[in-house]
Amino acid sequence: METKIELIGCGTVGQGFLEILNNKKEFLFKKYGFIPKIIAVSDINKGNLIDKNGINISTLLNVLEKDGKLSDLNKESEKYNNLSAVDIIKKTDADITVEVSYTDIKSGEPATSYIRTALMMGKHVVTSNKGPIALYYKELKELADSENVHLKFEGTVMSGTPIFNLIENTLLGDTIKSIKGILNGTTNFILTKMETDGLTYDEALGLAQKLGYAEADPTADVEAYDALAKILILSNVVFGGNLKLKDVYREGITKITREDVLKSLKEGYRYKLIGQTRIEDGKIFAEVKPVKLSVKEPLSNVSNATNALIFKTDLLGEIMIQGPGAGKIETGFSILVDVLDVLKRRNKILQ
Amino acid sequence: METKIELIGCGTVGQGFLEILNNKKEFLFKKYGFIPKIIAVSDINKGNLIDKNGINISTLLNVLEKDGKLSDLNKESEKYNNLSAVDIIKKTDADITVEVSYTDIKSGEPATSYIRTALMMGKHVVTSNKGPIALYYKELKELADSENVHLKFEGTVMSGTPIFNLIENTLLGDTIKSIKGILNGTTNFILTKMETDGLTYDEALGLAQKLGYAEADPTADVEAYDALAKILILSNVVFGGNLKLKDVYREGITKITREDVLKSLKEGYRYKLIGQTRIEDGKIFAEVKPVKLSVKEPLSNVSNATNALIFKTDLLGEIMIQGPGAGKIETGFSILVDVLDVLKRRNKILQ
Repeated sequence: METKIELIGCGTVGQGFLEILNNKKEFLFKKYGFIPKIIAVSDINKGNLIDKNGINISTLLNVLEKDGKLSDLNKESEKYNNLSAVDIIKKTDADITVEVSYTDIKSGEPATSYIRTALMMGKHVVTSNKGPIALYYKELKELADSENVHLKFEGTVMSGTPIFNLIENTLLGDTIKSIKGILNGTTNFILTKMETDGLTYDEALGLAQKLGYAEADPTADVEAYDALAKILILSNVVFGGNLKLKDVYREGITKITREDVLKSLKEGYRYKLIGQTRIEDGKIFAEVKPVKLSVKEPLSNVSNATNALIFKTDLLGEIMIQGPGAGKIETGFSILVDVLDVLKRRNKILQ
Repeated sequence: METKIELIGCGTVGQGFLEILNNKKEFLFKKYGFIPKIIAVSDINKGNLIDKNGINISTLLNVLEKDGKLSDLNKESEKYNNLSAVDIIKKTDADITVEVSYTDIKSGEPATSYIRTALMMGKHVVTSNKGPIALYYKELKELADSENVHLKFEGTVMSGTPIFNLIENTLLGDTIKSIKGILNGTTNFILTKMETDGLTYDEALGLAQKLGYAEADPTADVEAYDALAKILILSNVVFGGNLKLKDVYREGITKITREDVLKSLKEGYRYKLIGQTRIEDGKIFAEVKPVKLSVKEPLSNVSNATNALIFKTDLLGEIMIQGPGAGKIETGFSILVDVLDVLKRRNKILQ
């Protein structure tokens, strides 16, 4: 069955999603009867493109890879270039809005406005954008419920590694009491390299930057703002909280030296940047900080850029899921799985 | 909404399931609108009980804990005591048959006959019984499909830790290329104790028996028949194979000595009983055997009775799930989650 999709933002994640649609076209049709029809794309740098008949994904990818303008694909679309993404969302009749524009963890904008508009238009929304979910989950979820549409965001925590879909679909009847884990690949890579290669903090950070794990300005990672946003999302989504950024204690890894790392390893402990949240008598306690874990603990053996979360539940005890925390295809997959989950819930794909 | 359930077998798993229904009654109703109505119970040792109006779960648990007969609960049911479980399944109009009778990995009986009968009666089936799924999955799945009902078996691999529900519900669009992991808690416990406490194989096995991890006759665990059944299930379910027991290479842990374990640890390796299966060009390769893994590998850090599986997929790369592999409540939960998943797919519970 054809599904009309509009894509807001086409940076790394958007392109990862399109690549998967392109490469797995036949498989997705055969297995699920899924026929994606991209009817609009809007990007703050690349302009807008609308085509009711569906945009050719392969051609679209070619233009994006060459850093071209979207209107190169269809000259008629030049007339849309003065429209904002909000205007585009209002204009189309897409079934699903895929919101993968840039993340601003402090304001949540402009992505929150895009999502709000799409939900008000009665469109399902799939996003991997941490800002809107960390800051406005409660409001957006209520809006989605009132419009009888789905709001999905698997990619906001651990990219496509199943977290929210795991909780929603595989732990039915179980109750989660606490969640803790390694939620930032860059800092875990730095801590690993300080231990295994004896690098100083600055050398390890430099290597992470060289390999593309860390940004030129690494603050969001090393000062734990990124992990904080994820713990905030888990707290509010899983425990139904309404915590704000300031409610979560945050401490980064910048004060940890190579000497600290090597000394603690001799004593049988590894430094890890651990995010944790738990609910007790209806109250949520959440924090992100470096913790010395025994080398025998499962989380202390999660190395390099890998992420992992441990859920403590009342029926299953502890279960741990470990997997990628970032990546073009991995996060692109989070968009695909959420789109398919929405369609499954609406009986729009084969099951 | 009321769901009519019949319970075939009421040993550890059946009682675990009933305990959860009893303890989480209010939660299950509030969250999912789920009202379980146990209308029949059949156990080869304890007799039969049928009550169209629903059996009081708390009273039923009392009788089972005291090792009483089911007809103690309802004298009228004595007349059913000459009926077989197959007769009971034919007689009731249950929506879901929960099959948790004893496991025979060589014949799959009598459980396979119970499941076949229930499916032919148009009932959904939920089971944690490895025998029928390891030996007759293809036939049973085709029967379920032709009757338009669900056949669920989360508990057959890693008890309630999500494996099949993880694959079915959280990896939509992804393709699994290989699966490997630690699928037997008893042998992992023995190997761990040989390393951490310096026990001999016999001492570690004795401890496992004392703690209830191993049976008096430990053959199924230590000779890897249990892990073999699970790898067979994974091969046939996930890769659509039709492998038989003889198609899977099997080697147990009985030849591994304390000296082997300690020597290999000094060299940076740990012995683990690893089950693995992979598909290449449509051909499936499956085996279970002890493997020396680098202490840096995630699976080598899975200790004691814990189980873990690594899935290699085309979009996500490697993800690992770790959790309990056995237990009364843990396996009881596998039944609950499957029952709720069936009801969700039929829009019979709140989502």
